[in-house]
Amino acid sequence: MTRAQHDRMIAIDATQYSLWDRDVFQEMKDGGFTAVNVTLVIWENARETLDVIGKWHQRFLAFSDLILPVRSGKDIAEAKKQGKVGIIFGAQNTSMFEDDLYLVSVFNDLGMKVIQLTYNIQNHVGGSCYEPDGGLTRFGGFVVQEMNRLGMIVDGSHTGEKTFMDACERSSRPCVLTHANPKFVAEHPRNKSNECVRKMAATGGVIGMTCYPHLTGGRPVSLETFVDAVKRTVDLVGIDHVGFASDASRKFDDPYLMWIRMGRWSIQPEYGAGTKDRAGWLAFPDFFATPAQYPMVTEGLLKGGFSEADASKVIGGNWYRVFSDGFEPAKA
Amino acid sequence: MTRAQHDRMIAIDATQYSLWDRDVFQEMKDGGFTAVNVTLVIWENARETLDVIGKWHQRFLAFSDLILPVRSGKDIAEAKKQGKVGIIFGAQNTSMFEDDLYLVSVFNDLGMKVIQLTYNIQNHVGGSCYEPDGGLTRFGGFVVQEMNRLGMIVDGSHTGEKTFMDACERSSRPCVLTHANPKFVAEHPRNKSNECVRKMAATGGVIGMTCYPHLTGGRPVSLETFVDAVKRTVDLVGIDHVGFASDASRKFDDPYLMWIRMGRWSIQPEYGAGTKDRAGWLAFPDFFATPAQYPMVTEGLLKGGFSEADASKVIGGNWYRVFSDGFEPAKA
Repeated sequence: MTRAQHDRMIAIDATQYSLWDRDVFQEMKDGGFTAVNVTLVIWENARETLDVIGKWHQRFLAFSDLILPVRSGKDIAEAKKQGKVGIIFGAQNTSMFEDDLYLVSVFNDLGMKVIQLTYNIQNHVGGSCYEPDGGLTRFGGFVVQEMNRLGMIVDGSHTGEKTFMDACERSSRPCVLTHANPKFVAEHPRNKSNECVRKMAATGGVIGMTCYPHLTGGRPVSLETFVDAVKRTVDLVGIDHVGFASDASRKFDDPYLMWIRMGRWSIQPEYGAGTKDRAGWLAFPDFFATPAQYPMVTEGLLKGGFSEADASKVIGGNWYRVFSDGFEPAKA
Repeated sequence: MTRAQHDRMIAIDATQYSLWDRDVFQEMKDGGFTAVNVTLVIWENARETLDVIGKWHQRFLAFSDLILPVRSGKDIAEAKKQGKVGIIFGAQNTSMFEDDLYLVSVFNDLGMKVIQLTYNIQNHVGGSCYEPDGGLTRFGGFVVQEMNRLGMIVDGSHTGEKTFMDACERSSRPCVLTHANPKFVAEHPRNKSNECVRKMAATGGVIGMTCYPHLTGGRPVSLETFVDAVKRTVDLVGIDHVGFASDASRKFDDPYLMWIRMGRWSIQPEYGAGTKDRAGWLAFPDFFATPAQYPMVTEGLLKGGFSEADASKVIGGNWYRVFSDGFEPAKA
């Protein structure tokens, strides 16, 4: 494998959530990323999300040599052409919508395009993967409809399986799992059953296989093991429905980790995908210690028997297809 | 004069602020309006403004046979082509920016394009026309710069003269007075000195002459008197710098009037442009009892000696020029 093979591909990471700075963007560029779905919202309400968006606008000015905003497939192609990293605005919660259906179009207007229905706790829209899950609520159904209409993609990564599968039924357009693994990779509340992954794929969506250690059995895996998990998932749902998401969190500090895990909903310690015994941040695997190493994933896929065309789909082609269509408003 | 002459023109009302419904939009369409700068914000903070915008998104769906959103000169031309009324999002205050410079680009992204620096009271940006005015603040200067960069137009209608003239100095792009008259039309705090109107025109902007009775001497004027005021203003600053703004407020009720005048800043009664003795809503003049009568203004200008080309500038051509350029981001 040559670096040129990787660089020919549209390379997309479906989830990163870091303390963004020049180093972090440089790592993305060094990894040959065409686009990254960055997390803006974990617990933020409408007003707080405006602050987050405002700060991103300033980053687009300050780091215009490295990044540009992406709201369409055309923008992703433009990022590829310019050799910059396209930034897709994502949310890992619907907290910015509060209980207000009218806010869905407002945040679409602000370029938020990939929206996870719930983070780690139940909300107005549905249940999380960490609690009993009563399924998609009435409000949640309306939110899915609005997102379909406007061109925002439903993501079920941290969402309870029942809620997400309800959303797949309700949605007229592809739903995705930006960053999750099938449960056969590792038994973890955030990983999904075969039934759930198949249901998602049947909508036309993509699962972003992640090397985040908590979702691969609590330890960093080897590249071969990761590639094997990709293969097994391709066997489950087909080559058009498998992508990549690092779930990388660069430059995190403790206050940020506390915010991610506990938001304002708990005063007791909470451990997110970890446990009390394994509360810390786990090291990422050697083949993806930083996003700059993304070419190694391509190399792993090619060595593992994927054709260049198939590897290209996993590396970003499938996300490119789903994002290009999914970011556009529904046809009348 | 024939109606066809009016209908050939790009007709723009630079300020309306109503309880919007189908009747109100139908009146605009009946008046041949190509575009109307509608007020979204009087006292609303960032979060409240999201609600207002969300409601407008729903109106664009519910009344798509009558209105469409406008963010560019191209959109205004499209409204003309479709025979619909283009809706320009305006604010009569910078309250949605709070004290946060980062929010300027956020609200630009949401399509807010014409921004009055202050409403009736001093704010973070500057002074109002009803109080001693210390001029544009340091924050206000940064806001003007951001608006210049992004393509949002600085409006000084209710703003103190010193603040607005400071903004004209600071701004690298045309500033406007969407709805105000020169003081020679009537002595009123909201009307502007010749010096101020000239300074505005020197930036390349436009003054929207208004028939709002409080600004024409406290009574509705005749069409001839209004046209005469337009002529005198053209004599002052030239035909390219004079436009129209009704300042119409259709379907207002008392709670709304209280909100407009007192917001949250006073518990004592306040009377806005009125006075204690004349607290009520004044009837508009016969020639503009509703926006459906806008063709009468065209007729008045033509009868009063304006050529069709010159009348067309006042009826909307000048706003079209300023909005088309002013809504675009600054050239790099």
